[in-house]
Amino acid sequence: MKLATLRTANGGTTAALATGTDSYLTLPATDVGALLAQPEWRLVIEKAAEAVGDQNIIAAGDADFAPLLPRAGKVICCGLNYGDHIQEMGRDLPEYPTLFAKYADTLVGANDAVEVHGSGRVDWEAELAVVVGSELFHADEDQAREAIAGYTVANDVSMRDWQSRTLQWFQGKAWDGSTPVGPVMVTADEADQHFEVRGYVNGELVQQGNTSTLVFGPAQLLSYISQFTILRPGDLVLTGTPGGVGMGMTPPRFLKDGDVLTTEIDGIGRLENRFRIHAPVPANA
Amino acid sequence: MKLATLRTANGGTTAALATGTDSYLTLPATDVGALLAQPEWRLVIEKAAEAVGDQNIIAAGDADFAPLLPRAGKVICCGLNYGDHIQEMGRDLPEYPTLFAKYADTLVGANDAVEVHGSGRVDWEAELAVVVGSELFHADEDQAREAIAGYTVANDVSMRDWQSRTLQWFQGKAWDGSTPVGPVMVTADEADQHFEVRGYVNGELVQQGNTSTLVFGPAQLLSYISQFTILRPGDLVLTGTPGGVGMGMTPPRFLKDGDVLTTEIDGIGRLENRFRIHAPVPANA
Repeated sequence: MKLATLRTANGGTTAALATGTDSYLTLPATDVGALLAQPEWRLVIEKAAEAVGDQNIIAAGDADFAPLLPRAGKVICCGLNYGDHIQEMGRDLPEYPTLFAKYADTLVGANDAVEVHGSGRVDWEAELAVVVGSELFHADEDQAREAIAGYTVANDVSMRDWQSRTLQWFQGKAWDGSTPVGPVMVTADEADQHFEVRGYVNGELVQQGNTSTLVFGPAQLLSYISQFTILRPGDLVLTGTPGGVGMGMTPPRFLKDGDVLTTEIDGIGRLENRFRIHAPVPANA
Repeated sequence: MKLATLRTANGGTTAALATGTDSYLTLPATDVGALLAQPEWRLVIEKAAEAVGDQNIIAAGDADFAPLLPRAGKVICCGLNYGDHIQEMGRDLPEYPTLFAKYADTLVGANDAVEVHGSGRVDWEAELAVVVGSELFHADEDQAREAIAGYTVANDVSMRDWQSRTLQWFQGKAWDGSTPVGPVMVTADEADQHFEVRGYVNGELVQQGNTSTLVFGPAQLLSYISQFTILRPGDLVLTGTPGGVGMGMTPPRFLKDGDVLTTEIDGIGRLENRFRIHAPVPANA
């Protein structure tokens, strides 16, 4: 199944199921996170599919994607996780995952514009993201695997000027409305084992990697995180980015006002976000 | 005014006002965050004070402190912020605040036990914390100062073994139920300009500092953070810790099972938390 969070005419959002016929069936939940918070969410979907009527159908062309998990309690990201890229840089594989946190305010929808005020070094990080489906605390890898609701596409867009101001990356990573996520979550039972992740700037391929080379896979990451903090339905874990970020280019390359960033994972979907870069770093920041 | 979040007999919590007579008056909000989310929160308190009856009064001796802001949307921490300590270490004052994020699950009440499973290097960081009282985004320092609801006491307890595993501190800082906060918030209008912050282990003074030596003061921190992410009523910003953490001692010193950590700020209050340290780092973690 593919699930989405769509904006509705009344200014709200609704969870929705992609049907086989180029449309979405709305579900009785405000977003995918609220849907997953219901333990019987698969039953909720079944019932909605049985009661389908015209008023529950949105044509795919009319779908307006909100952030998949607009109220995610936790958005935890892993850095330095693609083994082939780490080894090509001549570094040792890490013993532990490098983790940092964001808040849900960081998320934007699959086709939303990203408005940036005050950074001149806006960089891309195409990533597979894991959606948590049930509570996890002190979980082993098998329990963590069972708790994965599904997978989605994200871009951990990073303001490199702010990120490099101090040792901690947070202030370069947690800009409101800067992390595209969606368009859909593919449920774990229908997802591939491995994913091909690609990033494009104005149609030019800049990043490519396969999650088979992740040092810490999805279940490993969830298990590790759950050793110190509880994960709940609707929480999101970003698994890191492959080589090809702008900062690593010679010379470094960053997004310009009007650029379109595309983030794509085969079998899940594609994000396409135009960037509006409004001003240089203000003098007082 | 001093405001607290108290546990109630029915398993919930309530916001409460400290009265002049060694008791608390319960307020119509589940916690201080929910109270501050009401723009007219001062009026809510006034009305509750007018309608006072025995059923609204809790004797101070019966007060069971929940985390002051059990559902804080953001808990943002600043590191390396005490100028005297930085200079005594021979380092330059930082140009930008070092920021990292936690989630509300990290918070515990003023007298709660802290249960630690899987770290053998549990360290203390006594801190002044700032409670946000109104929305802030792209705010200057004056606007940020206006938006401070009040001040409270926190201890940014840190698992140094996990913190030092990678460059990012998050996994050593975001352990559920490990950051004591409270017992009360003193409203900004009644608070001192500067605060004397002290930490004790089993009654022995280990940390002491005055917030007059902060490199980035409360309003500066809130303004800086608001350049990239919105702050809302009930959000919490921890301002950093003075010298005297266990990691910096020779030899390093960490909390042992049964130790009591006391964190105190004159004019606000005192946290007193017993630590239960259950097991060494598990082999697979």
